Amino acid sequence: MDRLIAAIKAMQNPSVVGLDPTVALVPPQVFDAVGDDLDAAGDKASAGYDASESGAQRAASRLAMGYFEFNRAVIDAVADIVPAVKVQIAMYEALGPAGIDAYTMTCEYAQQQGLYVIGDIKRGDIGSTAAAYAQHLSGLPQTASPSADAPHEDDSYDDLWHEDAVTINPYLGADGITPFVDAAKQTDKGIFVLVRTSNPSSKDIQELELASGECFYEHVADLVSDWGSDSLGAEGYSRVGAVVGATHPQEGQALRERMPHTFFLVPGFGAQGGTAQDVAGMFDADGSGAIVNSSRGIIAAWKKSGEYRSGMSADEALDLVASAARQAALNMRDELRVAVYR
Amino acid sequence: MDRLIAAIKAMQNPSVVGLDPTVALVPPQVFDAVGDDLDAAGDKASAGYDASESGAQRAASRLAMGYFEFNRAVIDAVADIVPAVKVQIAMYEALGPAGIDAYTMTCEYAQQQGLYVIGDIKRGDIGSTAAAYAQHLSGLPQTASPSADAPHEDDSYDDLWHEDAVTINPYLGADGITPFVDAAKQTDKGIFVLVRTSNPSSKDIQELELASGECFYEHVADLVSDWGSDSLGAEGYSRVGAVVGATHPQEGQALRERMPHTFFLVPGFGAQGGTAQDVAGMFDADGSGAIVNSSRGIIAAWKKSGEYRSGMSADEALDLVASAARQAALNMRDELRVAVYR
Repeated sequence: MDRLIAAIKAMQNPSVVGLDPTVALVPPQVFDAVGDDLDAAGDKASAGYDASESGAQRAASRLAMGYFEFNRAVIDAVADIVPAVKVQIAMYEALGPAGIDAYTMTCEYAQQQGLYVIGDIKRGDIGSTAAAYAQHLSGLPQTASPSADAPHEDDSYDDLWHEDAVTINPYLGADGITPFVDAAKQTDKGIFVLVRTSNPSSKDIQELELASGECFYEHVADLVSDWGSDSLGAEGYSRVGAVVGATHPQEGQALRERMPHTFFLVPGFGAQGGTAQDVAGMFDADGSGAIVNSSRGIIAAWKKSGEYRSGMSADEALDLVASAARQAALNMRDELRVAVYR
Repeated sequence: MDRLIAAIKAMQNPSVVGLDPTVALVPPQVFDAVGDDLDAAGDKASAGYDASESGAQRAASRLAMGYFEFNRAVIDAVADIVPAVKVQIAMYEALGPAGIDAYTMTCEYAQQQGLYVIGDIKRGDIGSTAAAYAQHLSGLPQTASPSADAPHEDDSYDDLWHEDAVTINPYLGADGITPFVDAAKQTDKGIFVLVRTSNPSSKDIQELELASGECFYEHVADLVSDWGSDSLGAEGYSRVGAVVGATHPQEGQALRERMPHTFFLVPGFGAQGGTAQDVAGMFDADGSGAIVNSSRGIIAAWKKSGEYRSGMSADEALDLVASAARQAALNMRDELRVAVYR
């Protein structure tokens, strides 16, 4: 986690902006502008060899490119004040393959702007399959590539996803985690394992009482600590972080003590109800140890600005998205500074 | 599950072929042939507007198209003897966006050949994010589409993924399940929730003893039964199935009794050690209630045939893949018929 911690320190800002667009969160004129571009490109490409797309694919491509333009505006607006973005792949996957392209483009663009990119993918599977998912971090194995003659952009590995860390689901046990830990070590990246999620029905599973007297999520917390124990960085945190929801402040504080070498990714701030006071206990005595995510609070700030007009051009609407997101990100930073940097 | 059960009855074959390719499982000349095609297409496209691909993307595209050609050979070889395929998205996701294209192409091609397609995606997230993942089943919402003028291929919904069922991870609780159940009802599809996975370290989590005296996976089994209770089909099984590994025969048999209205997807047959005897107890008295997956046992059968020669052409190698896969699928069918249709 040293790279993430350094970025947080440089900005004096333990917050991450969640890039989780939906159709309702993007001003409609952005999709319209993208649609015009796609139509022009489609006319041009239809002279070529592969322009056959179904109506659904065409609609999905338009949404996907709209998401990317929206994200680019947000990234440009916040890259000098926040250390990281969290990109929720579900929102992109909802659009099929075109959405996945927009996801990787978003991750790559954010990295180019100097941001640490957390891919919120919540993957988890067994042995060889987990190893395949771990290529989110490790990229294409060069030894496995049948086209070893192709030029490499990077000396160490062929990155395909452009993520610096990913989130992982622990339900499959260690088999599902080890390949990610190995990949994270190889590539100086990190993972965050789901421990205590912010949603109401997380209690169905995570609060179950075990025969040992612990809650289930506490047992998972101990496993996560173990899984990270041989990858401690210079800042005292391992490469294996934990997802701990802002909506559980007492539990989060107890977990902070229970797992002193585990960095927390804290979702649920803002729209889901978590406040700066709620998350303060999830930080260590030095104000490190956690990064707090806000998605709608930042990227939907334009809707609450009162400045949006349906007659705006796409560029005007994106300018509003950007200025509202920047102000919301500054407000969040300042709230967290007051609560955390005691 | 009625559609899947009908397909199984029609074939008298409760097995599903897992399309989980890796670089080592595809004859190398298939990648070479695809590479030549890609080079030609690349030359043609580079006259156009968007041919800029990195070396990694080029290598990934070659692998992805090789996977699709490999899958097509297997699908053509088994479509008249097996009712379903299970496509493990991790193997494709390992190749980045190009892999995702090959995944959806594989699913669509399998559906076109009449196969029921299980997307092994093991997704799971909270409310609005789970709803986004549920578009695997429900496709692009037409109301949400900004290009409502685009023609629809299907009256009911715009399918993007071409899956008939998907696998789901239960760690987030009901919030993460409900959107999938709703989507499955809307589109006459199904889901399979992870209950007891086939991998060794599943015990880290799934065998934990609860204060109630049950194992954790038994509690999850009861939740899964509940989640399906209002979607029973004509055959007595709900739309919410369970993943129960072949490597746990006694537990599988006990789960069969515990959840009489839950259809099982049973991985772990063959390469992972499960036998027809091991899985027999996971079926009901009528020989229904489960479908057994084999991946490497079918798609890697060509490697054990003794007939492969490195001098084979790509077409010759794919013919061998096809004939070996067909024979292995027939053998598995016959083993299951003996063990299950008592």
